[in-house]
Amino acid sequence: MTDRKKTLRVGIVGYSFMGAAHSQAWRTAGRFFDLPLRPEMVVLCGRDATAAEAAAERMGWQEVTTDWRSLVERDDIDVIDICTPGDSHAEIALAALAAGKHVFCEKPLANSVSDAEAMSRAAREAAERGVRSMVGFNYRRVPAAAFARRLVAEGRLGRIHHVRAVYLQDWIVDPEFPLVWRLQREHAGSGALGDLASHIVDLAEYITGDRIAGVSGITETFVKERPIASASSGLAATGGESRGPVTVDDAALFLARTHGGAVGTFEATRFASGRKNAARIEVNGSAGSVSFDVESLNELWFHDHTEDARTGGFRRILVTEPEHPYAGAWWPAGHGLGYEHTFTHEVVDFVRDIADGRDPSPSFADGLRVQRVLDAVERSAADQARWQEIPA
Amino acid sequence: MTDRKKTLRVGIVGYSFMGAAHSQAWRTAGRFFDLPLRPEMVVLCGRDATAAEAAAERMGWQEVTTDWRSLVERDDIDVIDICTPGDSHAEIALAALAAGKHVFCEKPLANSVSDAEAMSRAAREAAERGVRSMVGFNYRRVPAAAFARRLVAEGRLGRIHHVRAVYLQDWIVDPEFPLVWRLQREHAGSGALGDLASHIVDLAEYITGDRIAGVSGITETFVKERPIASASSGLAATGGESRGPVTVDDAALFLARTHGGAVGTFEATRFASGRKNAARIEVNGSAGSVSFDVESLNELWFHDHTEDARTGGFRRILVTEPEHPYAGAWWPAGHGLGYEHTFTHEVVDFVRDIADGRDPSPSFADGLRVQRVLDAVERSAADQARWQEIPA
Amino acid sequence: MTDRKKTLRVGIVGYSFMGAAHSQAWRTAGRFFDLPLRPEMVVLCGRDATAAEAAAERMGWQEVTTDWRSLVERDDIDVIDICTPGDSHAEIALAALAAGKHVFCEKPLANSVSDAEAMSRAAREAAERGVRSMVGFNYRRVPAAAFARRLVAEGRLGRIHHVRAVYLQDWIVDPEFPLVWRLQREHAGSGALGDLASHIVDLAEYITGDRIAGVSGITETFVKERPIASASSGLAATGGESRGPVTVDDAALFLARTHGGAVGTFEATRFASGRKNAARIEVNGSAGSVSFDVESLNELWFHDHTEDARTGGFRRILVTEPEHPYAGAWWPAGHGLGYEHTFTHEVVDFVRDIADGRDPSPSFADGLRVQRVLDAVERSAADQARWQEIPA
Amino acid sequence: MTDRKKTLRVGIVGYSFMGAAHSQAWRTAGRFFDLPLRPEMVVLCGRDATAAEAAAERMGWQEVTTDWRSLVERDDIDVIDICTPGDSHAEIALAALAAGKHVFCEKPLANSVSDAEAMSRAAREAAERGVRSMVGFNYRRVPAAAFARRLVAEGRLGRIHHVRAVYLQDWIVDPEFPLVWRLQREHAGSGALGDLASHIVDLAEYITGDRIAGVSGITETFVKERPIASASSGLAATGGESRGPVTVDDAALFLARTHGGAVGTFEATRFASGRKNAARIEVNGSAGSVSFDVESLNELWFHDHTEDARTGGFRRILVTEPEHPYAGAWWPAGHGLGYEHTFTHEVVDFVRDIADGRDPSPSFADGLRVQRVLDAVERSAADQARWQEIPA
Repeated sequence: MTDRKKTLRVGIVGYSFMGAAHSQAWRTAGRFFDLPLRPEMVVLCGRDATAAEAAAERMGWQEVTTDWRSLVERDDIDVIDICTPGDSHAEIALAALAAGKHVFCEKPLANSVSDAEAMSRAAREAAERGVRSMVGFNYRRVPAAAFARRLVAEGRLGRIHHVRAVYLQDWIVDPEFPLVWRLQREHAGSGALGDLASHIVDLAEYITGDRIAGVSGITETFVKERPIASASSGLAATGGESRGPVTVDDAALFLARTHGGAVGTFEATRFASGRKNAARIEVNGSAGSVSFDVESLNELWFHDHTEDARTGGFRRILVTEPEHPYAGAWWPAGHGLGYEHTFTHEVVDFVRDIADGRDPSPSFADGLRVQRVLDAVERSAADQARWQEIPA
Repeated sequence: MTDRKKTLRVGIVGYSFMGAAHSQAWRTAGRFFDLPLRPEMVVLCGRDATAAEAAAERMGWQEVTTDWRSLVERDDIDVIDICTPGDSHAEIALAALAAGKHVFCEKPLANSVSDAEAMSRAAREAAERGVRSMVGFNYRRVPAAAFARRLVAEGRLGRIHHVRAVYLQDWIVDPEFPLVWRLQREHAGSGALGDLASHIVDLAEYITGDRIAGVSGITETFVKERPIASASSGLAATGGESRGPVTVDDAALFLARTHGGAVGTFEATRFASGRKNAARIEVNGSAGSVSFDVESLNELWFHDHTEDARTGGFRRILVTEPEHPYAGAWWPAGHGLGYEHTFTHEVVDFVRDIADGRDPSPSFADGLRVQRVLDAVERSAADQARWQEIPA
Repeated sequence: MTDRKKTLRVGIVGYSFMGAAHSQAWRTAGRFFDLPLRPEMVVLCGRDATAAEAAAERMGWQEVTTDWRSLVERDDIDVIDICTPGDSHAEIALAALAAGKHVFCEKPLANSVSDAEAMSRAAREAAERGVRSMVGFNYRRVPAAAFARRLVAEGRLGRIHHVRAVYLQDWIVDPEFPLVWRLQREHAGSGALGDLASHIVDLAEYITGDRIAGVSGITETFVKERPIASASSGLAATGGESRGPVTVDDAALFLARTHGGAVGTFEATRFASGRKNAARIEVNGSAGSVSFDVESLNELWFHDHTEDARTGGFRRILVTEPEHPYAGAWWPAGHGLGYEHTFTHEVVDFVRDIADGRDPSPSFADGLRVQRVLDAVERSAADQARWQEIPA
Repeated sequence: MTDRKKTLRVGIVGYSFMGAAHSQAWRTAGRFFDLPLRPEMVVLCGRDATAAEAAAERMGWQEVTTDWRSLVERDDIDVIDICTPGDSHAEIALAALAAGKHVFCEKPLANSVSDAEAMSRAAREAAERGVRSMVGFNYRRVPAAAFARRLVAEGRLGRIHHVRAVYLQDWIVDPEFPLVWRLQREHAGSGALGDLASHIVDLAEYITGDRIAGVSGITETFVKERPIASASSGLAATGGESRGPVTVDDAALFLARTHGGAVGTFEATRFASGRKNAARIEVNGSAGSVSFDVESLNELWFHDHTEDARTGGFRRILVTEPEHPYAGAWWPAGHGLGYEHTFTHEVVDFVRDIADGRDPSPSFADGLRVQRVLDAVERSAADQARWQEIPA
């Protein structure tokens, strides 16, 4: 059996949590969605050859390399998928774009505004040459989130007054949890702010179609020192005897105003005991409200404020109907999706955009804007929570 | 049938929403709780004699007066219960305390810090003469809230990291809703801030046993002008033709730090479409979390972080067991209470404190502290959200 | 202050759980609702004079008697309120009706169909003489339940296909819980069936406006013997050393068909560990569905099947709006009611019906019909679950 | 890159809803779980060659055939995966087992008890020759369901008193929905009973580890005639002009007793407006309870009845921890799975059982037992709901 579609040959850099998620997406996208190009999982790139070999076999990549520079130069590769920690995003993405590869880069776009600016500039220039780039704010592709945006766009919420977003996790409440790379500024850029708040900032802008104009924020590191992990390769590492300083925030909280006149609260933390992956957003407008929680990702709660007072109330919409974004490609109504499907939807849209010569969304410019918000939060936190405008 | 208990003769000032709630409390407290004194509902005071007569008959007060000054001077009255808008709290309370009456004053304690300071000072001096005073943050007396505090006090939450509190209503989303007294600074002092945020500030301090040390905040008035109500006597008034300026906030949002090292987000709004009375608070600690919503006031959600990972999760506790605060006096387990019972519990505790010569809680000093937090939010909002310490 | 309304003088028989609930209702009804007659709480009747004295003082009744027969003969009493266990309902009600007293009788109407038939006949005859009677299925007066009925009556659910009702409690899961009167057939008539299933049978017929035509059922007694309580006067009694047989069902389950063509499942149990007072009913129709749980009694969940598929879903209606049944007399939207308010609503409607010369609902005939359903369940359970038609 | 594992060559019969789900499972299982054999997706079999070609290409099967008989005879095929409607299960499975192929057969096992008996017998004989078979009750492999069983097995629920199970859908509420094969007895065997009730019967026996001993039931067909679909190939067919009789049940309801002494209610319907895929089960025992809903499949609600009364309550466990069944192979805690993962887990266990020479579960004997329960329900429904014992 042969697939006569043109192929899209992919190389992936990184094979940890995000690498596994993206691999499943590349493998699955064409099985449920009609894609104009057929993705081919060609090369997996990792620093440790043995581990990379094992990962490639498990995840289904044909070849392995330990040198991302040579990978981005290969003529037979069309797409570079970047799944490394944030500190290497800029270097890899810039080289890949320069080499004319389409780039799918995990979030946050970069660890600094200057890196993100360079990436956004390079992406804009590459786009003029038909080279596409996308940053991986995957929660946009939860059907419920995409449908929330559509409701706002259709005017069902009216004028937006409030955004209320949190991203709550609890995996480092234990002070003996080790000092993994996500707790080190040099690798992660920031803590809950870049890892978690970036998601809800993007989600807020995506759903409302509005942009954050300014912020006031604070950050906190509850546990200042942690055991140094012998091999800091993951969340599961066990504690050692010596300790090192935690150099990122455990929690970040901020207030915001949007250009459209809404006000918002944002909170990201890894210390909300009992909350595992509670990325939640509620938007209140003059005509209605939506509320969403990643922990229950097949549900969107919608209140129609124009409804009769007797029968008004937040309704639990199972976003699994054929009429809902993405849902029709999968299972019958009520048969829900999971976390990984958000990545499959990213790949679907990215591949279609490449084929159609359209700029994907969220773009590197979107990623830069999120980075500017996070940067403003850090500046505010360092200056008595004073208001910081977000540069246009 | 005669009740041989000593009576506690009560005069109430005001007979609107709060007056009705307090009347039901005075009428009911002794029917379900064993009180050391028997409350007697003697005088209702209101400005409009006819309306006051009707209210007194409906609510069960024996006499009526239109002059609160003479009321507080009466020798046969033991308690003055203040249910008026905030702008008259200070004058009435100060006179009543001076006359040796125990005072139960609705929240917020006052419309300004200086008034609240005077009241707190007077209350402290009166206490030395055996005269008691209490401010009406009634949500403390929701059994679920009282039980949450107990769990914290018992150490079940460990070190507190986060407070996350909102008070969401939606009764003025419609721009044609009229300019009632609650939207006028001269009567209400502030808007959502004093009316709603005061509740969650008190609740946060009550449940955690900790105090807010500083804040950064913003406020917003979404609808700047509203129809002038012909008789601005309530929420149900209909719009007129001329318009006047809304001089209070529609929404107030702030970040906080506590002396104990926790961080918090607070939001109060009358523009959260679909949320009717969602006073919600979640507290996350190193050993557990609690979560509570006044819209479901018989429930407390508790997460025990020391539980095995397999069986951990937020549990829905119906706070209706005999072992729970207040609940044993009422109905069998699972037979819930309503909003009004919080006032009955206030009266129960207030009467017992009077009889036992104990200072009630929340005291006027507690009310002052809340006022200082609100004041700091307004100062921060007026100064680019800059951090404001709360005076001790 | 004098109330110039004509009074309605009430005598109550029984002062335990139901007596307390009814007393609170008589005391409160006129304070929030405009009643055409003023209820006066005159006499409390109980077998033990000392306990009755204490109850009367606590609950606010003026006099006490230990002889219900003399009470029902008193010329100055207008209403007899029966709050005793089911085995004495018939005798007291028949005597009261014969003496021309309006009768408010707790549910279940009686412990046997024959008693219920006699009561229903007497009530019908008394009604011709202007004497009113009502049976106390209080959950009809939860605003959410009354509103559910209204939605059905307005056609918002279309043709009814399904009723799904459970009443789950767990207070006797412990095999050492003592043999209280509710576990003895001679006093209680039956167990979960009469105590709990009676409520959901009435609720199902009330909400749907339809009637059960036939049933198939089973019953079960999980714990066959229990400690004999020294004073079997309540749920809180402690276990003794000798044991006696439990002579009622711990659980009753049945299937039903209605005259209107719907099918239903019903389950009542005192062994659903973790469920405290979960009287739940869901009704599915061709145009919509409603779902309700007494444990969250301010909420009605409504699904509008005519809604666009994209935005369809069960909505959580807070049944606290002025437009909702009963709710407008109480507090602002979102400020919920509790269990006891259902009794207040019963008194309100009963008093209005008396004044207006209208037959109250649920009538004794309604109570009889419920009794016939329960009886048919027991007959079915005794005959291999064979289908039993309900006599008209 | 070569995988040195021995392969397991699979042929699948059917490529509709279940075919797509199984294909995704075969494709994915080895990517997240360490399998002892490497599944190879070799042949897809379908009646329509063109459609089968398209399906094979989309789903990733190497070859296509229209003749299942030749497929099951092929020497190079190890596993036959049966995804056809129930009326062909027996014939295909018997031939495959006779040919020495391992068989994975979708549920329900067969459309009749006699077919199921033959299949169960053949499976038992084949097992003696090392040939394995499994029936596809996929909800057993929801981590929450598997964990519920584990809690019961560990004694955390004590003695089981109650099972309460429903499977609610609403896709044929519209009387104009066409007469698809699922509504025709000759193809589907039964309606909601075989399609939906089979799932909750299996789930009840799986979670409790107990078996249903007898039942009493009723069935109902609300819409007796429906438009004849031009091409009755799926749920999405549109209505035509002529009508034909619906020959299966729209809803089936039954009561049950287990050998272990529990009682249960079961209900399956396609007429529960607003419920999309609500397969729900609650089990109450003397020491605790569990509650589960497929619409929220990452959650298990657990009540520990041995917990202090103050802190007892149903807790929402996100069954996504490494300690939970299956969950550790996927994503970090809180990052949920979807419907399709249940099939992947089936494949994982099936492949491991084949490699380890162990009989898979649920076996064809389990499938037969479910079929006997369904058959007893139909017999009861045809005989006034009279009690029917389930043959051992």
